[in-house]
Amino acid sequence: MNSWGTTYRISIWGESHGPGIGIVVDGCPPGLNLNPDDFKEDLERRRGGSLGTTSRRELDLPIIKSGLFRGKTTGAPLSIEFENSDTHSSDYERLEQTPRPGHADWTAQDKFFGFNDYRGGGHFSGRLTLGLVAAGVIAKKIVEPIKIYSRVLQVGGEDDFRKALEEAVAGGDSIGGIVECRAENVSSGLGEPFFDSVESLLAHAVFSIPGVKGVEFGDGFAAARLKGSDYNDEIVDVSGRTKTNHAGGVVGGITNGNELVFRIAVRPAASIVKPQQTIDLQTGKPVSLTIGGRHDACIALRVPVVLEAVTAVVLADLWLRSRNFGGSRPSVRRPAVRVPEQQEE
Amino acid sequence: MNSWGTTYRISIWGESHGPGIGIVVDGCPPGLNLNPDDFKEDLERRRGGSLGTTSRRELDLPIIKSGLFRGKTTGAPLSIEFENSDTHSSDYERLEQTPRPGHADWTAQDKFFGFNDYRGGGHFSGRLTLGLVAAGVIAKKIVEPIKIYSRVLQVGGEDDFRKALEEAVAGGDSIGGIVECRAENVSSGLGEPFFDSVESLLAHAVFSIPGVKGVEFGDGFAAARLKGSDYNDEIVDVSGRTKTNHAGGVVGGITNGNELVFRIAVRPAASIVKPQQTIDLQTGKPVSLTIGGRHDACIALRVPVVLEAVTAVVLADLWLRSRNFGGSRPSVRRPAVRVPEQQEE
Amino acid sequence: MNSWGTTYRISIWGESHGPGIGIVVDGCPPGLNLNPDDFKEDLERRRGGSLGTTSRRELDLPIIKSGLFRGKTTGAPLSIEFENSDTHSSDYERLEQTPRPGHADWTAQDKFFGFNDYRGGGHFSGRLTLGLVAAGVIAKKIVEPIKIYSRVLQVGGEDDFRKALEEAVAGGDSIGGIVECRAENVSSGLGEPFFDSVESLLAHAVFSIPGVKGVEFGDGFAAARLKGSDYNDEIVDVSGRTKTNHAGGVVGGITNGNELVFRIAVRPAASIVKPQQTIDLQTGKPVSLTIGGRHDACIALRVPVVLEAVTAVVLADLWLRSRNFGGSRPSVRRPAVRVPEQQEE
Amino acid sequence: MNSWGTTYRISIWGESHGPGIGIVVDGCPPGLNLNPDDFKEDLERRRGGSLGTTSRRELDLPIIKSGLFRGKTTGAPLSIEFENSDTHSSDYERLEQTPRPGHADWTAQDKFFGFNDYRGGGHFSGRLTLGLVAAGVIAKKIVEPIKIYSRVLQVGGEDDFRKALEEAVAGGDSIGGIVECRAENVSSGLGEPFFDSVESLLAHAVFSIPGVKGVEFGDGFAAARLKGSDYNDEIVDVSGRTKTNHAGGVVGGITNGNELVFRIAVRPAASIVKPQQTIDLQTGKPVSLTIGGRHDACIALRVPVVLEAVTAVVLADLWLRSRNFGGSRPSVRRPAVRVPEQQEE
Repeated sequence: MNSWGTTYRISIWGESHGPGIGIVVDGCPPGLNLNPDDFKEDLERRRGGSLGTTSRRELDLPIIKSGLFRGKTTGAPLSIEFENSDTHSSDYERLEQTPRPGHADWTAQDKFFGFNDYRGGGHFSGRLTLGLVAAGVIAKKIVEPIKIYSRVLQVGGEDDFRKALEEAVAGGDSIGGIVECRAENVSSGLGEPFFDSVESLLAHAVFSIPGVKGVEFGDGFAAARLKGSDYNDEIVDVSGRTKTNHAGGVVGGITNGNELVFRIAVRPAASIVKPQQTIDLQTGKPVSLTIGGRHDACIALRVPVVLEAVTAVVLADLWLRSRNFGGSRPSVRRPAVRVPEQQEE
Repeated sequence: MNSWGTTYRISIWGESHGPGIGIVVDGCPPGLNLNPDDFKEDLERRRGGSLGTTSRRELDLPIIKSGLFRGKTTGAPLSIEFENSDTHSSDYERLEQTPRPGHADWTAQDKFFGFNDYRGGGHFSGRLTLGLVAAGVIAKKIVEPIKIYSRVLQVGGEDDFRKALEEAVAGGDSIGGIVECRAENVSSGLGEPFFDSVESLLAHAVFSIPGVKGVEFGDGFAAARLKGSDYNDEIVDVSGRTKTNHAGGVVGGITNGNELVFRIAVRPAASIVKPQQTIDLQTGKPVSLTIGGRHDACIALRVPVVLEAVTAVVLADLWLRSRNFGGSRPSVRRPAVRVPEQQEE
Repeated sequence: MNSWGTTYRISIWGESHGPGIGIVVDGCPPGLNLNPDDFKEDLERRRGGSLGTTSRRELDLPIIKSGLFRGKTTGAPLSIEFENSDTHSSDYERLEQTPRPGHADWTAQDKFFGFNDYRGGGHFSGRLTLGLVAAGVIAKKIVEPIKIYSRVLQVGGEDDFRKALEEAVAGGDSIGGIVECRAENVSSGLGEPFFDSVESLLAHAVFSIPGVKGVEFGDGFAAARLKGSDYNDEIVDVSGRTKTNHAGGVVGGITNGNELVFRIAVRPAASIVKPQQTIDLQTGKPVSLTIGGRHDACIALRVPVVLEAVTAVVLADLWLRSRNFGGSRPSVRRPAVRVPEQQEE
Repeated sequence: MNSWGTTYRISIWGESHGPGIGIVVDGCPPGLNLNPDDFKEDLERRRGGSLGTTSRRELDLPIIKSGLFRGKTTGAPLSIEFENSDTHSSDYERLEQTPRPGHADWTAQDKFFGFNDYRGGGHFSGRLTLGLVAAGVIAKKIVEPIKIYSRVLQVGGEDDFRKALEEAVAGGDSIGGIVECRAENVSSGLGEPFFDSVESLLAHAVFSIPGVKGVEFGDGFAAARLKGSDYNDEIVDVSGRTKTNHAGGVVGGITNGNELVFRIAVRPAASIVKPQQTIDLQTGKPVSLTIGGRHDACIALRVPVVLEAVTAVVLADLWLRSRNFGGSRPSVRRPAVRVPEQQEE
């Protein structure tokens, strides 16, 4: 439900227009240096403000309520909270009755019999990704020296972001995008057969980011068009090093020491100014909906730091549960095969 | 690890060339009619034999060891086994030393310190999907009246399967493919925020099928190129019915009562006759590997029935854990929006 | 680790002398009436103040940060917090170096390599049971009409509490006690074979209450001395009603519709004024420890409301996961067999 | 449900009178020496035959179907099965209609709507403990050098077993007993706050052994009668060594390096020759039940090896999940404090 992970376990709570949102991080090793400033960079990256993102600008300071003592993690759960201060609930008042097309408004109401907090998307709001980013900041420390970086590859099918964004904003519309994530220095041997492969766990976690509709590893969907002789990564030394990295660093569900590479598809934002048809749930009559408030035209732009966070959380969980069986685990952290950066065809 | 599910829980075991493979199915409701013949159709579909699939032909009769009494499930776990009879281990002898490119040979050996059973891929063999198919047969009964069907959309980037397959086989090569899955009569309200969305759980389970490298729901990666005004499914009545189904039946991670639609990318098979470069793990020297034995040229062809099974397992789990809170859950099973069948661009 | 439950899942965090403590409650059905006043009675019962309990008296007001909207639960997680205001950390300063006998001081330090927050027991403090009580208040609403009540049977081996307590306090000492819990109107059929019996789950949860060293169901340890003809509860009608209730309402790990009856043993409090021998971890030399601060002489006195809470949490989890299989579960909630209240021999 | 464990995970299946029973063991480290003979001693100990135990004597040979290769564990799940050969189903025919007092007959039927396999107790049969013993044999290897041993302390309240047993058998009756378990060389630091303490996990697992109605650690229920100055174990050196072991090796839910000591209460067997009153579920009329077949008069006698197994399984799980955080875990395995063996008062 609202928690994820076996060894590094996160539990998320909160609503967009309630008192705040937060996350409980369990399983963090003791003795990690951590202070509120460590969260700044990633939280800043997540924050909107540039073209195509919402102008809502909370300060988003993390309040660490437990698990930290004398500047170090204690081994007990960290409870991290963010207050909601910059909420304009009246913007959303009528959405209870007129669910936005493409948004969780209707499904949330259906699932929870109308008791859900609908304001600003409530528990389904993208604002909850603040908690993911916070958990990611800690996870990144755990998985060191793994380096994770993510970037937008394209928006609205265009590589010229500005043009696509300006067009969307001008039309009162939104656009989707594709985001890539790469992780270097991933040791081999992470991932558990049969059901807890690296791909299974990453996909599970990644689809919890609002708006994600697809994920592919390595060549992904392009691999479906290839021959085996083109796709298979030839092995060039006993450490498992390969000539290419079509597999994206995961073979048989287990990391092979190569760079981890995967991409996600993010749908366009549901909230748009352009009129859309929906239904008035009380009268049963169709209505035309024009959505005010402050919204992202392209949520993909804010996804990279969240995607990094989720990836770090998954890798931290896998790393902490990779059993060394009391022996010396020959962790392979060799310079990974790094292929030229790929573009979605 | 080797088990999956919260309420409908499956645990898989076995190796390709050991005594057999099996699955334990826990959480199956009591009183379901079940007899060994019920497995026939799906097991037959999974079996190889046609162009592009392996000629290995075990009988694959399910042996039900528990959980069944007087032709009905009892509520206790079902243990279902399949014997391995048609194994040619000598085909694989040298693979311990010369790991196949693109295959789990190297990662399995690395992860398990060389103690893994490497014969025929061992625990990583596609043969373990027999257990998934068996669990799926039962799950399909649980989720009635949901109808799940899956089919190959393309192989090797071609819609003309025969041509693509003949070319691959002739060249001693293999090819990938894209497989679609659809489920009708899915009630709304399935899926749990924040981490156990329908997409998260399906993706988790789907990536346990050997060879899967991508998954997308509804428009998926194509959605990344769309505008919100094109993507958003307009709502046309109070039951949440929509005009289109770009979301593939899942909005905010929760089913909306529409047809569930998703596609997966399957990489080409790793085992090919065509020579490939790999390393001899004992000498450390490069060797050219030509793989004999009986193999699939296109594993995508055998995936549909496995994909249906995995989908049924996930939906059964979600269905059984969807709490009705002691009250009357207004289950919406309306005629779903069915869009024209899509092809991967 | 710090979370428990399958369907009704709680995650606990906090330290005795940090900013506060809290609990996240996931899986609570939507539409339940809930307001802060509902917590008052049980929180008041938990609070110390009477003879034999600590004089620490925080206000302990629950702050509900999520999952509540218009006075009703929403189906999203409830995050409930309590601030720590009445802390006297200096009382504990030296305990980092001189671990209290019988207390988690040493094991916590050992497990977490000395990074634990040792002040007031830190994460191991009895103060965290505030969260359990809060989760219990909600759980009690879920399991209605089940009525749970708990009481102290004896302290220090005496039925005359006052005498035993006065003697302990006068001697700068502490005493243990036995606490019983009973639940009426428990429907039959709760509990899951093989590992999730009612006894397994209750015992699991009960041993998370600080100080508990034993648990027994029905006749418990006394049953070990009985003959089958004395112990077995004869069945008197088709609804499973029995003549006696030696089993305490659980047979084969599953509730039989009788009153649920179990008892726990609570050790004496570790913190006592009376000098005890321990070690100075820095000098390695033995020291005599006299513990000041405000402490309970008999923690058993404060356990009943916590025990009720934990019982309610377990029953809520079992109730919500008891699958009705889409059919009509013939829930048996008949007037239960109620045996005369038992005393520990 | 029918599986237990986080890192060392077991899944149990089978019925007393079906084809067989079995267990799937997941998470076993690779490279462990294992052959069928290793199971002999513990299986032999579990087998009945002596005074007070059933005369049913299957050969109980473990059939290892997976996870073993060249005499060593592979890291993949081990599936271990036992055939049922010596079943006399006719002995049980009428029990479907006339549920045994004290037995799961009625609750199983109630929970599973009458679809349960009632023969010989079906899935609730003590025969399933064969699987636990098998999982324990492997777990004992994992936790080396921990030594676990268990013994019956008393039966029917008597230390003179023979006398108590003869009296019970002569009277067509059964008797309960108390069984103790001790583990030496347990390293400190096992157990996870808040909910996964050593006591919580052991109690959870122990109550899955049929017939257990109580568990107590260290002084247990006797601790409830003690003063803190008598109960608290004084710390005598920096390694945490204590003068006494009233806590039974667990303080604050975490092992302190002392001997682990706990006891369980086992109720008398439900199946007795002596007539008991029950109900005929079809006619609704009371009937007098005299139970034939082969049964244990004192199931406590067969519990020790099962209790050892369950303890080993729990310790293996805790050991494998105790994270070493990539650093040097200062595992304390010192000569433990060993108190004189205790008797239940």
